[in-house]
Amino acid sequence: MPRGRRPGSPETSATILAEARALFAAQGYAATSVRAVATAAGVDPALVHHYFGTKRELFLAALGAPVDPRTVLGPVVAGGVAGAGERLVRTFLSVWDDEATRLPLLALVRGVLEPGGERLVADGLLRVVLGPVGEGLGVDQPERRMSLVASQLIGLVMARYVLGLEPLASAPAEDLVAAYAATLQRYLEVPLD
Amino acid sequence: MPRGRRPGSPETSATILAEARALFAAQGYAATSVRAVATAAGVDPALVHHYFGTKRELFLAALGAPVDPRTVLGPVVAGGVAGAGERLVRTFLSVWDDEATRLPLLALVRGVLEPGGERLVADGLLRVVLGPVGEGLGVDQPERRMSLVASQLIGLVMARYVLGLEPLASAPAEDLVAAYAATLQRYLEVPLD
Repeated sequence: MPRGRRPGSPETSATILAEARALFAAQGYAATSVRAVATAAGVDPALVHHYFGTKRELFLAALGAPVDPRTVLGPVVAGGVAGAGERLVRTFLSVWDDEATRLPLLALVRGVLEPGGERLVADGLLRVVLGPVGEGLGVDQPERRMSLVASQLIGLVMARYVLGLEPLASAPAEDLVAAYAATLQRYLEVPLD
Repeated sequence: MPRGRRPGSPETSATILAEARALFAAQGYAATSVRAVATAAGVDPALVHHYFGTKRELFLAALGAPVDPRTVLGPVVAGGVAGAGERLVRTFLSVWDDEATRLPLLALVRGVLEPGGERLVADGLLRVVLGPVGEGLGVDQPERRMSLVASQLIGLVMARYVLGLEPLASAPAEDLVAAYAATLQRYLEVPLD
């Protein structure tokens, strides 16, 4: 082990996460390697993989994500473009309306406004959440469409869960599915340019 | 003057603003009177009016708003519901794309995540920005419709100006007008329930 730290201790795991968060925030997702995180934490890359799996999973752990977006969004993507707007907003609300996932997600949102937080979340949203959805659905200009989708979903989070803007904050989920499904579907399908 | 403070000093003005911000954040807009702010600041209510005008204007000053929403949104409302979605997003982008107003607005957004910030901004959005627009346009269920509109505009701010989510962050304003106008128009006009 570089620097002689012992593997397997809780401090080692916490050190790896803290260094991962710092590097992802400073350099972005693409430019950060598991090896660089390992070096910063003074451990072997194999230990990082042992604790946290792939780079993608390390990123989600560093972000404090309470669910794996790939698992949650898999069924949304698998159904194809038709009806994807409705499946996406319904899935999104089910995750956010569940207190067990809402509380860590709120902590994540608050982290956005800490130093480096913008880059961490913007990069994470793009590379780990939105990119795969847009590509999986097979739409044209996936990044452009998914950034429109993201702008509505982020605003829904801010209005309903952070600001508590009424009557949106207390509305039944199904009312919001009805309101937002058509918006998201349009962002996925409307001709661009 | 109660407590013997001198009127007219910059400290008096700053004290009034700080007390106003604290009271609006703790109690909300409706429950906070100019008299209560004056008492908290140890000055006469007339001095509060002298410095800051009406309660609405005091609120905007306490929030740090760089523009008066009534002035900016007047032409949006005056044109009626037809085309209001497009006028609203174009006006919104013109204010946010102007650096002179964007920087103080970003400070305001960051204040949302400070203690009491949610209530301050949620209340301000509802009472001072959204409410008058919905009522001015004469739509049915104005609070419900305007909270949907707000959720998209807040998400646009977060994605474009706070997170810098590409390609949305660098998109020409006119591309975004085209993308968002139909969404806002639908929220203003789609049958609810």
